Amino acid sequence: MLDLAIIGGGPAGLTAGLYATRGGLENVVMYEKGMPGGQITQSSEIENYPGIPEVVSGMELMQSWPQQCQRFGLKHEMLEVNSVKKVGEHFELDLGKYIVQAKSVIVCTGSTPRRAGIIGEVEFSGKGVSYCATCDGFFHKEKEVVVIGGGDTALEEALYLAKICSKVTLIHRRDGFRASPTTVKRVKENAKIEVLTNSVVQEIYGDAMGVDGVRVKTSKKTVDLAVSGVFIFVGYDVNTEVLKSEDGYICDLNEFGEVVVDLRMRTSLPGLFAAGDIRADAPRQVVCAAGDGATAALSAISFIEGLK
Amino acid sequence: MLDLAIIGGGPAGLTAGLYATRGGLENVVMYEKGMPGGQITQSSEIENYPGIPEVVSGMELMQSWPQQCQRFGLKHEMLEVNSVKKVGEHFELDLGKYIVQAKSVIVCTGSTPRRAGIIGEVEFSGKGVSYCATCDGFFHKEKEVVVIGGGDTALEEALYLAKICSKVTLIHRRDGFRASPTTVKRVKENAKIEVLTNSVVQEIYGDAMGVDGVRVKTSKKTVDLAVSGVFIFVGYDVNTEVLKSEDGYICDLNEFGEVVVDLRMRTSLPGLFAAGDIRADAPRQVVCAAGDGATAALSAISFIEGLK
Repeated sequence: MLDLAIIGGGPAGLTAGLYATRGGLENVVMYEKGMPGGQITQSSEIENYPGIPEVVSGMELMQSWPQQCQRFGLKHEMLEVNSVKKVGEHFELDLGKYIVQAKSVIVCTGSTPRRAGIIGEVEFSGKGVSYCATCDGFFHKEKEVVVIGGGDTALEEALYLAKICSKVTLIHRRDGFRASPTTVKRVKENAKIEVLTNSVVQEIYGDAMGVDGVRVKTSKKTVDLAVSGVFIFVGYDVNTEVLKSEDGYICDLNEFGEVVVDLRMRTSLPGLFAAGDIRADAPRQVVCAAGDGATAALSAISFIEGLK
Repeated sequence: MLDLAIIGGGPAGLTAGLYATRGGLENVVMYEKGMPGGQITQSSEIENYPGIPEVVSGMELMQSWPQQCQRFGLKHEMLEVNSVKKVGEHFELDLGKYIVQAKSVIVCTGSTPRRAGIIGEVEFSGKGVSYCATCDGFFHKEKEVVVIGGGDTALEEALYLAKICSKVTLIHRRDGFRASPTTVKRVKENAKIEVLTNSVVQEIYGDAMGVDGVRVKTSKKTVDLAVSGVFIFVGYDVNTEVLKSEDGYICDLNEFGEVVVDLRMRTSLPGLFAAGDIRADAPRQVVCAAGDGATAALSAISFIEGLK
């Protein structure tokens, strides 16, 4: 039986593996069907991971992590976990071809931003198209950007970007926003934010250097906006499939479908921990996910000690 | 008026400054009377900060942080903050010679492990004497170590070390432990842990390479133990002086005197955030403190937005 199964190989999963094995757990496997590194490896520029002062790509940032985190015995299995369930005092992971048993589990499968399906969106992803204002807003300092979406996240991110950028055009396909009234009020009162409702971005265009602009169809006409950045917030999928049970989920999720945790990354199910973007209130930053992973591993060590 | 005052310049404070300024806050000052870097700069070896695969000293680890974190406008004032209080909608920081006003405050003054006052303790600190099993346990893999203390932390850390080290001698000056009965039971049942009660370590000795052993006075005799590591857990002081008010503290503390926070690092006082070792359930790791700092800064940005 494994001491610990880690599901997901991004910053949270890798750091959990580092801390768990360095803390003396002996059978620790990280299940990640792809290359370790996580969603951040798709980012073109990172400058806010403390200790790495250079502006690097996500791929460069994560390059040294797998080797460092596997130094103390963490194993990586390139397998997908279909589901996890607790059977008596231990966990069973369904890997399709076989079942693996573990004393504890850390789930760090993250969340995936939804694409808006705009022409040019995929092509310019990481080259001006972004799904994270905290990550990429600063690269558009004193420049004009577009925010697409009409929910709380879109409006909050527009407010965040308005502190950094010279102008933010918030584009929403419907007439009204689905956000808290105070947030809507703040957006409408912000001199740097222009709101275009009943409008859709038809195309994102640019060249090899990145985005140059967007074509927007409003209710009256089609206009071109010269912007360097397009921030898309049309929702995200929390990757909790693995936690599904016959009658719901094996642990508590919140109203957004995120895993509820305490400060020690304990979920509602003893022995199951969550770390990184899958958990409630995640700031979606590499350093935060890594911190979560360390925390979850220390909690798992303590949990296993308590089983004896 | 400052947008944000950060009190403390360790990994939490520096990362908070990075995220706050990169997120567009304009007047952000970090108050740190010494050189930025924090307690970790006193550690001789770090190998568990993800992304820094080499074994480095704490000083080396933190070397690049101040410059990186100050790139976006964070100012460092080499001043000590005497106290913080909320006056109406803003905060006032007493700097002795003058008062500074701020819209929000992040406190990250950490905690300080108490010294046991043993001969050789200071001399070998960082060279075998440690106050953190998670940090330094692995450097004594398959070696013998001593743990000093009789509370929950000492016993839990002894259990942690027993997974890594070949033998752990737990030395406590009293007859009984002040720890939960289940933890005491686990310690007593652990074959790798030997318990010496009514015993004190009189001296820690070694050479330039580090600790060689300790001299222990038990109730019957004086013995020498050849160990490479001495882990001291005789309590720690949470550095909350700055949060003291006339009738207690300006925010809620828990039974251990740590600042109570939620997952967004919000304290019980709106606009006041805590990050790093000062907060409840802190894992006392650089990566966790840095994650806290980022989280607290994003919460402060959001809080300030809400003031408008």
